[in-house]
Amino acid sequence: MSHYNNFAGQRIGRVEALSDGVFAIAMTILVFDLKDPVSNLLASDTEIRAALYGMMPKFLTYILSFMTLGIFWTGQSTQYDYIVRYDRNLNWMALFFLMFASLLPFSTVILGNHIHSKFAVGLYWLNILALGVLIFLHWQYACRKNYLSVDGDAKRLVHEAVTRRILVAQSLYALGCALCFISTYLSISFIIAVQLNYALGIFPKNKPA
Amino acid sequence: MSHYNNFAGQRIGRVEALSDGVFAIAMTILVFDLKDPVSNLLASDTEIRAALYGMMPKFLTYILSFMTLGIFWTGQSTQYDYIVRYDRNLNWMALFFLMFASLLPFSTVILGNHIHSKFAVGLYWLNILALGVLIFLHWQYACRKNYLSVDGDAKRLVHEAVTRRILVAQSLYALGCALCFISTYLSISFIIAVQLNYALGIFPKNKPA
Amino acid sequence: MSHYNNFAGQRIGRVEALSDGVFAIAMTILVFDLKDPVSNLLASDTEIRAALYGMMPKFLTYILSFMTLGIFWTGQSTQYDYIVRYDRNLNWMALFFLMFASLLPFSTVILGNHIHSKFAVGLYWLNILALGVLIFLHWQYACRKNYLSVDGDAKRLVHEAVTRRILVAQSLYALGCALCFISTYLSISFIIAVQLNYALGIFPKNKPA
Amino acid sequence: MSHYNNFAGQRIGRVEALSDGVFAIAMTILVFDLKDPVSNLLASDTEIRAALYGMMPKFLTYILSFMTLGIFWTGQSTQYDYIVRYDRNLNWMALFFLMFASLLPFSTVILGNHIHSKFAVGLYWLNILALGVLIFLHWQYACRKNYLSVDGDAKRLVHEAVTRRILVAQSLYALGCALCFISTYLSISFIIAVQLNYALGIFPKNKPA
Repeated sequence: MSHYNNFAGQRIGRVEALSDGVFAIAMTILVFDLKDPVSNLLASDTEIRAALYGMMPKFLTYILSFMTLGIFWTGQSTQYDYIVRYDRNLNWMALFFLMFASLLPFSTVILGNHIHSKFAVGLYWLNILALGVLIFLHWQYACRKNYLSVDGDAKRLVHEAVTRRILVAQSLYALGCALCFISTYLSISFIIAVQLNYALGIFPKNKPA
Repeated sequence: MSHYNNFAGQRIGRVEALSDGVFAIAMTILVFDLKDPVSNLLASDTEIRAALYGMMPKFLTYILSFMTLGIFWTGQSTQYDYIVRYDRNLNWMALFFLMFASLLPFSTVILGNHIHSKFAVGLYWLNILALGVLIFLHWQYACRKNYLSVDGDAKRLVHEAVTRRILVAQSLYALGCALCFISTYLSISFIIAVQLNYALGIFPKNKPA
Repeated sequence: MSHYNNFAGQRIGRVEALSDGVFAIAMTILVFDLKDPVSNLLASDTEIRAALYGMMPKFLTYILSFMTLGIFWTGQSTQYDYIVRYDRNLNWMALFFLMFASLLPFSTVILGNHIHSKFAVGLYWLNILALGVLIFLHWQYACRKNYLSVDGDAKRLVHEAVTRRILVAQSLYALGCALCFISTYLSISFIIAVQLNYALGIFPKNKPA
Repeated sequence: MSHYNNFAGQRIGRVEALSDGVFAIAMTILVFDLKDPVSNLLASDTEIRAALYGMMPKFLTYILSFMTLGIFWTGQSTQYDYIVRYDRNLNWMALFFLMFASLLPFSTVILGNHIHSKFAVGLYWLNILALGVLIFLHWQYACRKNYLSVDGDAKRLVHEAVTRRILVAQSLYALGCALCFISTYLSISFIIAVQLNYALGIFPKNKPA
């Protein structure tokens, strides 16, 4: 008897397209939290500038969340560079991963509104952690099932590099979250600094390929 | 005379791309129903936590709807694994299917706001039913027209597995909906349990392919 | 000297992907006009049902607009079945076409809120007309420039079928709009009937291909 | 030791898909700033028309922003016509480029609400400038690293044409912004005129390819 579960959820191209959609939307709707702060439509330039200045926490969390999404999108995209087979278990790990990506705008609003709240920082960090756990499991499962395009030493190198990157990044995010007991601004700034470092590829230095 | 209807709506790739778009957006805008419940921007952590706790019905319906969309997206994606030809009838079944997918965030808001209302549960179930009916017709039509990539026994096996999956799932959803006459929470929990079972592939157990 | 305009905007795949995105989003954000009409969260089932019943104009315009978008999306998709070359003029016709597609949710809100207003019907019709004019120009230009994959008689047949379909449909929409001088409901119902006819392919009857 | 940075972010197809998503969404959510201006649901046609007429600044900024996004989308798409290799530096330039594309709806709201504010015009221009700088760097980097599909003279011609187009366009936008010291309407009209010229390809005239 052929069972539905044996052939469902195997189209990598569709999962990638859905992921690009969810990430594109999540990135773009972050901007919904940025609203015109000036109700008076005939406000002077000075008033508008002052009001925008008061939105600093929101701009900060906007950049934070855009980079978070960019990093996890790049990370997931890199995995698909190597994954050539797929099954319904990976399909559902990817869907739950997308669920937490689509929740990030919510965590961002909470954090942007309550920039001094340790609880809001913790909630945001839980969101990052969930993304990290799911992308980690997705990779381990694909490796264990031999769904990669590479084999032998190449597989080992790629496997270790991806695994290490996730673990190091998540350790730094956890450290960043812990800093909220000193100051939530310090906490957020540290996480953004870690992200900028990853985005700009400053440290550890790229070796020539 | 060449008739427009004979060559319109035959591009499977476009329908898949549109579907990925609609599902990605529907999944992501579910989060719009999750709003910061704390108007006081200087609220204490305890207040924020309590307010989020009061949002439980909304988190519940969020997970419910994300999984509903994930299941139907996976189901539709699986059909396209086998469908290699297309015509305008399938095109419009797919479009009406997407219409009900894009209506799900609305049904979700009604349910999230009125978690004790049998009527809201019934409305939500009608939405699931419409998705099921359309994906069922889509499959039957494609099979009848011999638009599949498989033939003979392989076709029969795939055809039966897909048909059985839709019918069993819809029966369970109908049962779940009926449970609202006991309790709407029971109803929603039962449907989530069915969905989790499908997502995690627990029962019936996957046989080795 | 190589001029930028000679090589910009030639990627059909990207234009198709952008179109799928815009249509998917426009289709899905139509639902934003459907809001929970019941502010009282402990409302009885009867109250909820009555409130939803009062939303009939909005459901009507929702279906109207979803079908409008579905028809134009199918029409554009059919053109790309035949167009194999592209240039920046087509690129910008496509972009302005998408601009009016993304305006449709706005026209829909105006119509849904003012279901008895001839002006709102006229505005909605102008939106449909703009979509029709742009998709018409897009096709004529591509034919004139010999950008199609077909030639000779095949080209003539396809060219005439597409042209005829756009002209007939737009004439019926114009007639539908004119009916608003009798009743706006008649006007909207007539347009939906025309659209359903196109979607279901009832009349003129499909001839076997 | 294989380093994560050496193989991350190299999938051009994914970056293109994400870009199409972000642009499609940014283009479509511009419409969110267009709201039904008539609260009275039984308003007369005259009232509705007058209210819509009062929304002129918003329609103006809507067209402005749709064209801005269309131009940068076309520009980016043209670059990908020639770029055949990719690395994580390009990946992150593309992500920051998308960040400013997704910020445009916010700049648009500020400008639409404060059409007489020089500060709002300046803010909008900064957004255009940021898009220009990033797309410029993206191109220079890809050329310098020899990631293009063309070589020798062909490369030089393409390289110069793309570079010239960005620099000329940005100069015109800067000039347009400076005009706000005379009148913000003049400023916006000038930028729209520049954009229309680029969209319609009027001046400089296309030479036959």
